[in-house]
Amino acid sequence: MPSTGPAGLLEKVRAKRPLIHHITNYVTVNDCANITLAVGASPVMSHAEDDVEEMVGLSQALVLNIGTIDRYQLRSMFLAGARANHLGIPIILDPVGAGATRFRTNACLKLLQELKIAVLKGNGGEISVLAGAGGKVLGVDSVSTGDDPESLVQEYAKRLGITVVMTGPEDIVSDGKKTVLVANGHPLMGGFSGSGCMAASMVGAFVAVSTDRVEAAATAMAAFGLSGERAAKKARSPFSLKQALFDELYNLTPAQLAKGARIRKA
Amino acid sequence: MPSTGPAGLLEKVRAKRPLIHHITNYVTVNDCANITLAVGASPVMSHAEDDVEEMVGLSQALVLNIGTIDRYQLRSMFLAGARANHLGIPIILDPVGAGATRFRTNACLKLLQELKIAVLKGNGGEISVLAGAGGKVLGVDSVSTGDDPESLVQEYAKRLGITVVMTGPEDIVSDGKKTVLVANGHPLMGGFSGSGCMAASMVGAFVAVSTDRVEAAATAMAAFGLSGERAAKKARSPFSLKQALFDELYNLTPAQLAKGARIRKA
Amino acid sequence: MPSTGPAGLLEKVRAKRPLIHHITNYVTVNDCANITLAVGASPVMSHAEDDVEEMVGLSQALVLNIGTIDRYQLRSMFLAGARANHLGIPIILDPVGAGATRFRTNACLKLLQELKIAVLKGNGGEISVLAGAGGKVLGVDSVSTGDDPESLVQEYAKRLGITVVMTGPEDIVSDGKKTVLVANGHPLMGGFSGSGCMAASMVGAFVAVSTDRVEAAATAMAAFGLSGERAAKKARSPFSLKQALFDELYNLTPAQLAKGARIRKA
Repeated sequence: MPSTGPAGLLEKVRAKRPLIHHITNYVTVNDCANITLAVGASPVMSHAEDDVEEMVGLSQALVLNIGTIDRYQLRSMFLAGARANHLGIPIILDPVGAGATRFRTNACLKLLQELKIAVLKGNGGEISVLAGAGGKVLGVDSVSTGDDPESLVQEYAKRLGITVVMTGPEDIVSDGKKTVLVANGHPLMGGFSGSGCMAASMVGAFVAVSTDRVEAAATAMAAFGLSGERAAKKARSPFSLKQALFDELYNLTPAQLAKGARIRKA
Repeated sequence: MPSTGPAGLLEKVRAKRPLIHHITNYVTVNDCANITLAVGASPVMSHAEDDVEEMVGLSQALVLNIGTIDRYQLRSMFLAGARANHLGIPIILDPVGAGATRFRTNACLKLLQELKIAVLKGNGGEISVLAGAGGKVLGVDSVSTGDDPESLVQEYAKRLGITVVMTGPEDIVSDGKKTVLVANGHPLMGGFSGSGCMAASMVGAFVAVSTDRVEAAATAMAAFGLSGERAAKKARSPFSLKQALFDELYNLTPAQLAKGARIRKA
Repeated sequence: MPSTGPAGLLEKVRAKRPLIHHITNYVTVNDCANITLAVGASPVMSHAEDDVEEMVGLSQALVLNIGTIDRYQLRSMFLAGARANHLGIPIILDPVGAGATRFRTNACLKLLQELKIAVLKGNGGEISVLAGAGGKVLGVDSVSTGDDPESLVQEYAKRLGITVVMTGPEDIVSDGKKTVLVANGHPLMGGFSGSGCMAASMVGAFVAVSTDRVEAAATAMAAFGLSGERAAKKARSPFSLKQALFDELYNLTPAQLAKGARIRKA
């Protein structure tokens, strides 16, 4: 009997080994590649306008991350995104630093407007700013969020007609109808560069193998957070936690995920 | 009673958590982000001409590192730098590979001429070349330096009216009036990619919270070097030293820094 | 009496410390820099059209890696490559993802046509596609290769008049006349991002110090694979193997390499 729920999804990622095309920043790109491999999927990075349309056609998900966006990369995101939409390949958008500058905020709003995004995953500040709910972002860190983040995420998801993930001590995942909370993770995970970017890659890997995007995104966040919890046991700092995180995710069994995932309905 | 000296400065970095805007190379950018976090500051990377002026306005220091410079990134450095100068935000310049090629040397000379740089931090070869003192650089490694590096640094700092840091077995820090030497560090630290870049990020974090730039830069080099010394105890190579370095800096207490910093007047 | 064979070549890399100019992707560039240092050579990364011709003139080998190629970087590869050819500096080409998209395939074919490449190093799918032997590449992973890879590599090397390395459980190295097989390595080495890119940097370091390119490339693959075997002993996953790999290569003695290298004639 095949597993269901988080365990079944993790098995599916490992069995199907989906190709996840990233157009992402050069700060954490290596971490995104390795976390994609650690969970059992296959990463490919390509940003060239001459290359992205064909590459995305080979892929099962497209991750767009604006962490070091410029106008050339943004153009390639639109090219790849349009092709992904045409082919029915889900797009994950990570709005890194939206709210910090107008260029970043506007890039995200335009991507959300002109492309059909499957999952928008950001921190509290980023999502709140994009939803027009007055969050605050300093650089790439969330500084403040709205008063009632659960309602905010649910209503914003409903308005956009997509799945929204707001990361935080408890991650909020909603498609406007179904809303779930994921309580996995460890405080040290916010202390190294790239945990948000890696989470987006994780969401890409799971959304690539499931049409239930709320379940897929929640499972991705649970698997990532649980691996972080396990890694934290031996870690002296966020940086040794990060190193151990890859080991833990790679060795995480479906049974461990089923047992350790803390996903509940909102 | 608040701490003074190195301990007080480290406390200040951690309390103020300054945002350090980097326009830097894609080789060591992840290390720069993580070392900035490890010391207690907050990194942001942005190189887009559409983004840098607004981003630097949110920041407390701007680090310019020419490790993989091209003409587009250089243009953004001038845009961000002009804005930083207008706002009084200190700029740290890391002239990676100056002296190896004319493009790199000229980029640095032009940045030094057209922007008001707060701290220029380079290795012996780079600083000697820029000062016109006949250093030698091969690729990004210093091969030779002038005969009397202390005088060279002091006189060059005086001529430019800025603070100059020449890294080496003993780092030399001078603003032309005050010159100090920092003896922290470990030989293995030169054996991995990025120690120089990370040092520049460290200088950025400390200069962001203090107007005494000689003290701030010297403290940055001492904290970095001392963390390296501690990391070396368990390291089998420069590469495992690097991994442990982040842990050590993150866990370095102000009291340990006060005790271990080897800063003396020249 | 100086050592010969693999031991002698490793000693030569460490004694000469050749400068290896990379024009490479931003995903694994940091790993390429550090593996170059770990083996005893010196890396420099530069992609700017204003910089590459002068930089390659200082170097003893040029590594071209198309992992995140775009038209601007491709132009710089031709500029640097032409200068390298003029100066007699060997070029190593890593055709990452050739066969996945036409842009990547055509970029490689054009580089092979217009430049005199010394060593082409790719996985089974990439080499088979370029040789017109119907391999298959998905993203950057080899999916299938020809039926008789040894003959394929030998004939393709003969046709191009260069040395070809096809990586795999047993690496095949041939210049069309001499063909050798290298059996070092560990299955986990394929599980992290960048092992192929790092292998190309290794080949660059050894080809920089020897005109016998088959021996140099085979020794590079043996030293890399042997370090991976040693690292695997303590590894919980491909990711901790990677971290330990740098340590092992740095500490690998010529005697250990002579004893552990498994290079045989085809």
